[in-house]
Amino acid sequence: MFTIGVDLGGTNIAVAIVDEKGNIVKKGSVPTLSSRSYDLIIKDMGMLCVSLIEVEGLTSADIESVGIGSPGIADSKNGILVYNNNLNFKDVPMAAEFQKYLNVPVYIGNDANVAAYGEYISGAGAIYSDLVAITLGTGVGGGVIIGGNVIEGSFFAGAELGHIVISVDGELCTCGRHGCWETYSSATALIREAKKSALANPDSMMNQIIQGDMDNMNAKIPFDAAQAGDAVAGGVVDSYIKYLAIGLVNVVNIFQPEVIVLGGGVSAQKENLIQPLLVAMEHEIYGGKEAFKTKIKVAELGNDAGVIGAAMLHKLHE
Amino acid sequence: MFTIGVDLGGTNIAVAIVDEKGNIVKKGSVPTLSSRSYDLIIKDMGMLCVSLIEVEGLTSADIESVGIGSPGIADSKNGILVYNNNLNFKDVPMAAEFQKYLNVPVYIGNDANVAAYGEYISGAGAIYSDLVAITLGTGVGGGVIIGGNVIEGSFFAGAELGHIVISVDGELCTCGRHGCWETYSSATALIREAKKSALANPDSMMNQIIQGDMDNMNAKIPFDAAQAGDAVAGGVVDSYIKYLAIGLVNVVNIFQPEVIVLGGGVSAQKENLIQPLLVAMEHEIYGGKEAFKTKIKVAELGNDAGVIGAAMLHKLHE
Repeated sequence: MFTIGVDLGGTNIAVAIVDEKGNIVKKGSVPTLSSRSYDLIIKDMGMLCVSLIEVEGLTSADIESVGIGSPGIADSKNGILVYNNNLNFKDVPMAAEFQKYLNVPVYIGNDANVAAYGEYISGAGAIYSDLVAITLGTGVGGGVIIGGNVIEGSFFAGAELGHIVISVDGELCTCGRHGCWETYSSATALIREAKKSALANPDSMMNQIIQGDMDNMNAKIPFDAAQAGDAVAGGVVDSYIKYLAIGLVNVVNIFQPEVIVLGGGVSAQKENLIQPLLVAMEHEIYGGKEAFKTKIKVAELGNDAGVIGAAMLHKLHE
Repeated sequence: MFTIGVDLGGTNIAVAIVDEKGNIVKKGSVPTLSSRSYDLIIKDMGMLCVSLIEVEGLTSADIESVGIGSPGIADSKNGILVYNNNLNFKDVPMAAEFQKYLNVPVYIGNDANVAAYGEYISGAGAIYSDLVAITLGTGVGGGVIIGGNVIEGSFFAGAELGHIVISVDGELCTCGRHGCWETYSSATALIREAKKSALANPDSMMNQIIQGDMDNMNAKIPFDAAQAGDAVAGGVVDSYIKYLAIGLVNVVNIFQPEVIVLGGGVSAQKENLIQPLLVAMEHEIYGGKEAFKTKIKVAELGNDAGVIGAAMLHKLHE
């Protein structure tokens, strides 16, 4: 038997047929064309699943269930996408609508939680029973799994760990608050600070790398320049690590999970990120190094975490 | 059948025999004399339980289990008090030691988590399935119950919600970090700020109330003076509410529980605290007032939350 995972993104709909161990056996994607009404978007999700089943030489009888990871507030109990700003979804009966195309049990979840569940089932968290996943991308996303259960919030809008204020009256966040962790630890924030420092320091190596065009700045450049000995870039990275460590020690003090898995663009830095981060965190952990039991790891599934986690959502309903 | 709850405090050991509905049928207490070795302290806990059973005309056969709430890191799986600074406990086999005096099943838990569980079972959280309890006392304590389970952390040191940094490089905390929520929202912090403002403003009504002696300052005085129209005290209260609201919206963004229950000394202000707090929180909640679904309530059990929660710990192991 197989299950199918659907990762509904703002740009693309990704779908994968997954075996019982969480391995992808067939993948596909179509553009979301997100300005369309929900019924057309869900129809494309359904049709893509149906065509992948055919291509793989299967029938719907081989598919045990479908899971859908969606941005926004996903009512996992009732299969309803309560709210999503970017897709303009409000109280969309996602599971029921999808079943028009493939009539199997359908489970839904918030995309960040679903991706965390993917890492938990068959990625960096596979050997742990409690995991927090933190995505360092456009924003800072969070997904929390304790004893096999996803912490979704009583009204399905919890685990918004990027929107923990860590600096009262600090940087303005897209959520309307000031000083959210996301405004310091997202890739967006790192790029913002790198641009600021490059502008203020014409001699910084970062200016050579971007060839004078600030639009070329990305989250990799300050790390690369710092490694090559550029002190200005080093300052940008040190400051980024400082805030990231503060937010992660908050996560430890809140959940004290067995493992925190870091994903998103910045996590591509791997040991260049993890090593200084561990040093900074050890200084912040109550009781110091000895009391610091939570492991810090880099995500292993990349973009596949979403479809794999979605395909495994049935496990939460068994 | 009855159960017994033990609340091990730094000053007193409180014990209660509790019925199946969570009602206290008999209470007692003895001094902790916390500088003693753990075997003597646990002996006093045991002997007090035995004597209360006798006084109530019961026998040990009427006692289904005992629960113990202790400060520090409590390994609830193995009944071991892993670490407590104030009592100088390290890897104390608390359950086994206690059973020398009363040989029934013994469950242990961290005192803040246990008190939260008391409010959950028969206090302000009784009608909810997810609850976060926040204690505004000497520090800021946290207890989290999701779907009937206490979030303890994988190594039993989680839910330290007072040690979420909300102000990078802010006030020094007893935990060694800077800017922990506790350093702004504890009763201790409120008293610190009230003293500062009273000193800087000799005309403030707070100075009349304390009769010139800063040692008379307490968490009630700034609220009382503010209500009587003192602008300086009003500023202290407004600032306190601001930081408290930021921390509580963090809690909503993390757990989005059905209810947050506020306990500890400052919660005695009840509606004087809750009303301005709700206004401040509405401004911080993503999506505003409409999206603000978590109820904010004042704790109902007072000091009894500890013994009642402890007596009910068996429910977590059923």
